[in-house]
Amino acid sequence: MTYQKLTEKTLKKLASIVGEEFVRTQPDVLQTYSHDEVSDTTYHHLPEAVVFPQSTEEIAAIMKLANVAHFPVVPRGGGTGLACGAVPLYGGVVLSTERMDRILALDPAGLYAIVEPGVRTADLQAAAAAKGLFYAGDPCSSDSCCIGGNIATNAGGNRAVKYGTTRHQIYALTVVTPTGDIIQTGARLKKQSTGYCLEQLIAGSEGTLGIITQATLKLLPRPKQIVDILAIFPTPTKAIDTAACLLQAGLLPTCIEFMDEPTLRSIEAYLHEPLPGKDKRNYVIIEMDGTEEEMEPALESIDTICQRQGATDILVADYKKIWRARKAFAEAVRAESLLVSKEDVVVPIERQGEFFHIINDLAHKYNLITRIAGHIGDGNIHLNILKPAEESYLTWQKRVTENQTALYTALYQLGGRLSGEHGIGAKRRDLMERFTDPATLALMKTIKKALDPQYVLNPGKIFDISK
Amino acid sequence: MTYQKLTEKTLKKLASIVGEEFVRTQPDVLQTYSHDEVSDTTYHHLPEAVVFPQSTEEIAAIMKLANVAHFPVVPRGGGTGLACGAVPLYGGVVLSTERMDRILALDPAGLYAIVEPGVRTADLQAAAAAKGLFYAGDPCSSDSCCIGGNIATNAGGNRAVKYGTTRHQIYALTVVTPTGDIIQTGARLKKQSTGYCLEQLIAGSEGTLGIITQATLKLLPRPKQIVDILAIFPTPTKAIDTAACLLQAGLLPTCIEFMDEPTLRSIEAYLHEPLPGKDKRNYVIIEMDGTEEEMEPALESIDTICQRQGATDILVADYKKIWRARKAFAEAVRAESLLVSKEDVVVPIERQGEFFHIINDLAHKYNLITRIAGHIGDGNIHLNILKPAEESYLTWQKRVTENQTALYTALYQLGGRLSGEHGIGAKRRDLMERFTDPATLALMKTIKKALDPQYVLNPGKIFDISK
Repeated sequence: MTYQKLTEKTLKKLASIVGEEFVRTQPDVLQTYSHDEVSDTTYHHLPEAVVFPQSTEEIAAIMKLANVAHFPVVPRGGGTGLACGAVPLYGGVVLSTERMDRILALDPAGLYAIVEPGVRTADLQAAAAAKGLFYAGDPCSSDSCCIGGNIATNAGGNRAVKYGTTRHQIYALTVVTPTGDIIQTGARLKKQSTGYCLEQLIAGSEGTLGIITQATLKLLPRPKQIVDILAIFPTPTKAIDTAACLLQAGLLPTCIEFMDEPTLRSIEAYLHEPLPGKDKRNYVIIEMDGTEEEMEPALESIDTICQRQGATDILVADYKKIWRARKAFAEAVRAESLLVSKEDVVVPIERQGEFFHIINDLAHKYNLITRIAGHIGDGNIHLNILKPAEESYLTWQKRVTENQTALYTALYQLGGRLSGEHGIGAKRRDLMERFTDPATLALMKTIKKALDPQYVLNPGKIFDISK
Repeated sequence: MTYQKLTEKTLKKLASIVGEEFVRTQPDVLQTYSHDEVSDTTYHHLPEAVVFPQSTEEIAAIMKLANVAHFPVVPRGGGTGLACGAVPLYGGVVLSTERMDRILALDPAGLYAIVEPGVRTADLQAAAAAKGLFYAGDPCSSDSCCIGGNIATNAGGNRAVKYGTTRHQIYALTVVTPTGDIIQTGARLKKQSTGYCLEQLIAGSEGTLGIITQATLKLLPRPKQIVDILAIFPTPTKAIDTAACLLQAGLLPTCIEFMDEPTLRSIEAYLHEPLPGKDKRNYVIIEMDGTEEEMEPALESIDTICQRQGATDILVADYKKIWRARKAFAEAVRAESLLVSKEDVVVPIERQGEFFHIINDLAHKYNLITRIAGHIGDGNIHLNILKPAEESYLTWQKRVTENQTALYTALYQLGGRLSGEHGIGAKRRDLMERFTDPATLALMKTIKKALDPQYVLNPGKIFDISK
């Protein structure tokens, strides 16, 4: 792909759209916007400018200009991505939605919110809570990620078992298309069959089919009670298989989380505090919400199932403490090693135990240091592979790549997919090309070409259109 | 749109794909497949042939042939549509999925089913129940409609409040594209962020973007208990507004149904049996499922809310009797008048009371005989307008059309949409063109053109591509 560089004239036109102070080309700014949360610098790339529009209309004008002056535009929310979805691979413009951070409505009668894309997820959660309402979307990075990015990656997180991922929170979206048109897709309706479901095509398309400029999201009444159960198992596969047992019994936790012993030790070291249980700990955290009347029989069933699966301890956990530990996962791993290869694989829920064996066998074969946490209520396993300090990047990377090929081959045989919630971005693009059914991939490219004939919106993400 | 007529040569090629006995051109067969459940013959159109393929590969071969020989192909499931989605407007081939009626898997461990498109919804429900499982999709026509059609129209029905519409039951689809490619979209995963969500684009596209040839659907454990409450209200708007009150209180019924007094009288006459309550009856049926422990406090809350809304009677209803009455709605209306104009409008849930007033004011203004039933738990109101026997079709139709224009204008001002669950098809196509945001409609057409460049798959449905 080749594009026009941003000329002085183009930069002036950008300034005339968003205001001069909101077009930045200072080296430190470009540096900041050259990457997301992926630390490996081989994935970083400098933009030529960063723009900060404040309205749907400004974004539409930027896209119209991009089509005429032929420069790429890469939309960016909180910059918390883990797949390089917001990295400007071909330079051009990074379009930050930071200034579009208003909550426009929070309606208790209709149970919905209308927000701009730059609203932090935690801010929406808090604003809803202040009105006795509940926004169910909850990525682990909720303190720093934004709603626009949540929708673009179909972010998952900690309540997806009961409430679904971000795509399930969407009523309607205002979207600027790659050619600079403004569309209204979806509606604030519990159901409809009125034309193509464009909002679900846009959700999870990682900013390749449109820029989300406003979202109408579902709210719920606040759950009356939340209880977290910590069950500790000596055997990791028995721990993991507990997730399927709970769902088969008709229980519907908000989430079921897993952490294995090496991961728990890593978190203990990072937090400087011991976590419950003795050696050979595998944690399963089960969170239930609901009314008091629902809770008691549900907790009894959970207890019975965990015991049957061989849990040695089943405790009601301190909400703050247990989630502080779970949410420290990423930081703890980073404290152990500056370079970490992160997998976000997802498998059918009842095949996770089997897949965990494969992960461990391969880690053994390729001599890898792993830390594993999983949203096992929805089959999503985060495998982190640490680079040993003493090893060279290249030899480590070679083993990581060999492991990845073997792992993904097994994954797809089990009916799994590359990404459960982080997305494909630039990072997993080549793997996406390799492991996706060719006709299905071709159809995705057909849609991209039809909507973005000049290929100016977030090029090089998810797949390579030139192939 | 102009197409090639089916020549002898083309018919032979079709026969070589599906077998000679499965290509039918007999006039009585063509007649049968010239319409769906819409009785108005102005919407009927004869196909040139009806084909009955038995596999994905056969359907792919038919689509390849259609692109070469340039004839239209109209996919058809149970033929129970109410929007003329399966009517062959331009002749050509009706492709019936009747022979593809196998349930290929029902898995209690993974909680899923794999089915062919011609499986009757009720058959899947029964097969799941026999294994202690539950398929949540439940259109009112479940005895006769098929899964393929359910997905194509995103059928709603009687459990959408708690379980969502048909699109929410989908894990994965095998789809034959308009150009005859076979794609696998989605996966049997609770969540994923691995490329475009094509399965949700296909669902609800009414057979214009692909033919569904296999579906992997979600199952659940069977609910332990089901209770139906019948609440009778003197005031229709108070009855209707009860739906929003229940949801605001955090209750999650499987469905909330509404029928007004004239409709109840119509059903009583059709069933030759009296329904509970005195004059000025407006029924709200509230169905809850769950465990025994959940049920009691939920029923108490329902009682309190219904009383607050002015209900005169709140009864635990006989499941069979109450649903026999509710499901007799369409037949009862048909018994009153052979010609009925049916609306399937949907509005935000808390604005239904307001919308009901508008419906009644307009019915009064245009002197219309109405029968109204609503899935008020999701804002979907079925307005039926009966033609008086003594009136000419043309003068009645004129009033119906004037009413429709006024009604839809008000509907869209309230944030509503044309169709809650029946789809647009051929019947509401012109209204879709008129009431949809132009840029959004243009994007839908762009997608259709990209996927079906020869315009051979179900042309003329949802919108008019030539405009």
